[in-house]
Amino acid sequence: MSKKENNEKPSKLRVIPLGGLEQIGMNITALEYGDSIIVVDCGLAFPQDEMLGIDLVVPDVTYLKDHADKVKGFFITHGHEDHIGSIPYVLRDVPAPLYATKLTLAIIDIKLKEHGLSKSVKKKVVKYGQMINVGDFRVEFIRVNHSISDSAAFAITCPVGTVVFTGDFKVDYTPVLGTPIDLTRFGELGKKGVLAMFCDSTNVMRPGFTMSEKTVGRTFDNIFAENTGHRIIVATFASNVDRVQQIITCAAKYGRKVMLEGRSMLNVMTAAQELGYIQIPDNIMISIEQIKSYRPEDTVLITTGSQGESMAALSRIAASIHKRVSISPDDVVIISSTPIPGNEKSVSKVINELTQQGAKVIYQDTHVSGHACQEEIKLLYTLIKPKYAIPVHGEYRHLAAHAELAKSVGIDKDNIFILHSGDVLEFSENEAKIVDHITLHEVLVDGLGVGDVGNAVLRDRRELSESGLVIVSLAMGKGTNIVLAGPEINSRGFVYMRESEEKIEEAREVVEATLSKLLSKQKVDRNKLKNEIRDALSDHFWKTMKREPVILPIIMEVE
Amino acid sequence: MSKKENNEKPSKLRVIPLGGLEQIGMNITALEYGDSIIVVDCGLAFPQDEMLGIDLVVPDVTYLKDHADKVKGFFITHGHEDHIGSIPYVLRDVPAPLYATKLTLAIIDIKLKEHGLSKSVKKKVVKYGQMINVGDFRVEFIRVNHSISDSAAFAITCPVGTVVFTGDFKVDYTPVLGTPIDLTRFGELGKKGVLAMFCDSTNVMRPGFTMSEKTVGRTFDNIFAENTGHRIIVATFASNVDRVQQIITCAAKYGRKVMLEGRSMLNVMTAAQELGYIQIPDNIMISIEQIKSYRPEDTVLITTGSQGESMAALSRIAASIHKRVSISPDDVVIISSTPIPGNEKSVSKVINELTQQGAKVIYQDTHVSGHACQEEIKLLYTLIKPKYAIPVHGEYRHLAAHAELAKSVGIDKDNIFILHSGDVLEFSENEAKIVDHITLHEVLVDGLGVGDVGNAVLRDRRELSESGLVIVSLAMGKGTNIVLAGPEINSRGFVYMRESEEKIEEAREVVEATLSKLLSKQKVDRNKLKNEIRDALSDHFWKTMKREPVILPIIMEVE
Repeated sequence: MSKKENNEKPSKLRVIPLGGLEQIGMNITALEYGDSIIVVDCGLAFPQDEMLGIDLVVPDVTYLKDHADKVKGFFITHGHEDHIGSIPYVLRDVPAPLYATKLTLAIIDIKLKEHGLSKSVKKKVVKYGQMINVGDFRVEFIRVNHSISDSAAFAITCPVGTVVFTGDFKVDYTPVLGTPIDLTRFGELGKKGVLAMFCDSTNVMRPGFTMSEKTVGRTFDNIFAENTGHRIIVATFASNVDRVQQIITCAAKYGRKVMLEGRSMLNVMTAAQELGYIQIPDNIMISIEQIKSYRPEDTVLITTGSQGESMAALSRIAASIHKRVSISPDDVVIISSTPIPGNEKSVSKVINELTQQGAKVIYQDTHVSGHACQEEIKLLYTLIKPKYAIPVHGEYRHLAAHAELAKSVGIDKDNIFILHSGDVLEFSENEAKIVDHITLHEVLVDGLGVGDVGNAVLRDRRELSESGLVIVSLAMGKGTNIVLAGPEINSRGFVYMRESEEKIEEAREVVEATLSKLLSKQKVDRNKLKNEIRDALSDHFWKTMKREPVILPIIMEVE
Repeated sequence: MSKKENNEKPSKLRVIPLGGLEQIGMNITALEYGDSIIVVDCGLAFPQDEMLGIDLVVPDVTYLKDHADKVKGFFITHGHEDHIGSIPYVLRDVPAPLYATKLTLAIIDIKLKEHGLSKSVKKKVVKYGQMINVGDFRVEFIRVNHSISDSAAFAITCPVGTVVFTGDFKVDYTPVLGTPIDLTRFGELGKKGVLAMFCDSTNVMRPGFTMSEKTVGRTFDNIFAENTGHRIIVATFASNVDRVQQIITCAAKYGRKVMLEGRSMLNVMTAAQELGYIQIPDNIMISIEQIKSYRPEDTVLITTGSQGESMAALSRIAASIHKRVSISPDDVVIISSTPIPGNEKSVSKVINELTQQGAKVIYQDTHVSGHACQEEIKLLYTLIKPKYAIPVHGEYRHLAAHAELAKSVGIDKDNIFILHSGDVLEFSENEAKIVDHITLHEVLVDGLGVGDVGNAVLRDRRELSESGLVIVSLAMGKGTNIVLAGPEINSRGFVYMRESEEKIEEAREVVEATLSKLLSKQKVDRNKLKNEIRDALSDHFWKTMKREPVILPIIMEVE
């Protein structure tokens, strides 16, 4: 970085979240200084309940596309969907190198291969402590603990100063693999001076300290000790390699074979094993095809589906539609996760189905969070001593609670910013303020379509889903008032067919009354005709049934 | 009750849950002995997520209709929707007297009036300790505590023995109004001998004892003391009269006026006040129309919407679409309830919206459950000493956990029954067994329609909601292969209109290719033609877009 000459106006650092508050989970933040842009994380959001039929939501990166020549690289903190999920969609339009740790890149690469992009994207493995210089930025990777190995925080330096992105983190003094979070480095940075910290807010409403991942291992050990004679099935997040490691360690101790089930479980474990992130004793793994060759009580099945996801292995097992695994009353099922808000009912459903088949379901003390609680967040503030605090990763209420916490550890209240997606936060050496706002449009992915479904389509889907559809079709002589065929009434999602004959006959009479009223006069505009039919039927259904089906009149013009 | 003669085969008691496990919340149980049937509770279930457009679910009472002459009465434990909600639907078909305590009947009557049924239904107010003799049954009303006043358990006696329905209950030694649950009476019944207990399972997975309602009053007092100078808004269940009483008591102590908002809040409070279930100091109540005449810090607003229900007052206030109340940064909002499973996201949304407008939202320690925890349930088993235990009111996992708890207090495991809706549990003096199963169909209510929407319609709605609809219409000469107009393609909920022109043109080409292939040959059956069009388009959309819209071909026949 060249020192700016004195007479040149100093540049500003601009930080723009392109996802976040309005799309929980979609972590993607652009940092711009001079002619350089770097991007931290590139996540996706899962569709909200009202986004009917939508598979996922990816960020609007128009700003990056418009400045594609300035984009120097994507820096990814860790391999969770909400930080990597949009990479295949974004890098297609904004090709720039990816920088991440070894396991993170391996997980990204699984995704890139599925999209046929693995070869075209440049990837660079970065180690903890390493500095990457791109354009006007220097990015340092710092070790943190989280529920996936190889997670990193970033200290990003440009001539305006250093900003720290914690990424998702917790403080684990006894991690399963590797060493604790690099608190010393955060302290050194704090001593030198940090302009701003962008800090994880997920657990900011929980007092105290998040438990070590190792405590889960002790719970597993107890469960294994108490349940010899029973098959054990454990559902957990595929990406939590340390969790799987602890299950395998228990299996080895108690002489059980291990099967993995679920596509993402197999994918991640293959990658983790190749890179040495998991230690698997010899001859312990068997494939799910061998399930019948071993006594159930001599096996452990590790599977996806701990969130009750309907297509995941555990849900299929619970619903008795899994090809190879069926539940017996002797099974012990451990659900090693806490439901993510919104998944409570799906998880309950799976537990009920398993219980009904006689399985014992255990979920107490079988999970710890990957995110920092209040004391851990305070620890980072105390070490890093940022001038500005920007709570990230959470709903508004979390960010607001985080702002209070930041105040409590001495951050000036005017120096705390809760950013909405698209806000442009500009830093100079002495000042930070929101100077602009970029309008962002959520990009909805439905099947192969990216962005071809929007609010109008979703409104239609919602209306169709609530009361169904009634179609009125008729054929008329072109340019005449003469009805050649119809009106014919069809419906979908409206009422039972056996009930509907009478209802449909009534509706036909309403349409015919409307037609004879209108068509007896001069030639009627087709749109007016459609509108009158729609209004008459709409009135009719509301009055007689208190329902509002979508009404679609179709007029065929016969030459 | 006449003693049966010795040579007559002794009758059996049959107990049939007509709702329950398969429809959580729909509490309705028939008891049949000889020529008498009585019904305990008559609740509704809220629609599950996949029941698109459905307002509520009511029980299938075909069995009661088929034996209407035997039905002697409906006995209602308390005034919550899941115990009273289906009364207007069921009593229309099965007219029989209603027996309940004073407040319970008053709340039912609000509902009956809305349905124009208040006058036609016979209602009898029953006091705690009172016995009602109907047919071969004697029903005793016993005081319990719950989150609504005037809740009762029933001891139901017929020649086979006595069965106890606890209803929803907790043990509150310091209730806000009235006295604690009548433990002595349960003990007396136990001493005389109880055949079976049907016991609340809601909180059976929670150890310990549920806190007294009075503890919430202490929390309110602290919040009021700490927030002088701020308006206070409290959202809670309209039916929790004791909760509202405690808020009003606090308001009086701290010199605030009280406004009520939300239709059910006003309805229930009017009834509670008329019956003397709530003590309101003079001149404390003001109407919401007077909101602007008082300083905000001198008022408390008590409102519905603590579950984030989208149409309730608090949600409308939070979303800034309430007519009279808007949030200011000085407001303190207390959410005095815990989200019912499935409502977590709606409640979060409301909290986020309130926080974003600067309000302080408090929900810690502002609620206690109305249901018994493990120690309270054990207390009832110990007093009542039933021979048979039938856990009710909960998901399967709760009932299964309750069965374990019952075993732990000495119930023989063969004497514990988890009943599915429609199971017929038959008791003689020495034996209990499931002897039959009645097939029940959920009755879905949509607008004014009761039972005119079923699985086929819901499947249509789901398909429409996921990928929308494509309609192909054409007019053909009747009985010919000649296309007179079309094919015309219309879509709803499929893709953006601006994107769709090209997509629709492609689809039209697919249809035309199909038509020209088929219609060049001999006359084609219309159904075959429709099927071929549907198949061709379906293939086309899957291959090009990975989507599966509903495809609806319409052929108009022109004479």
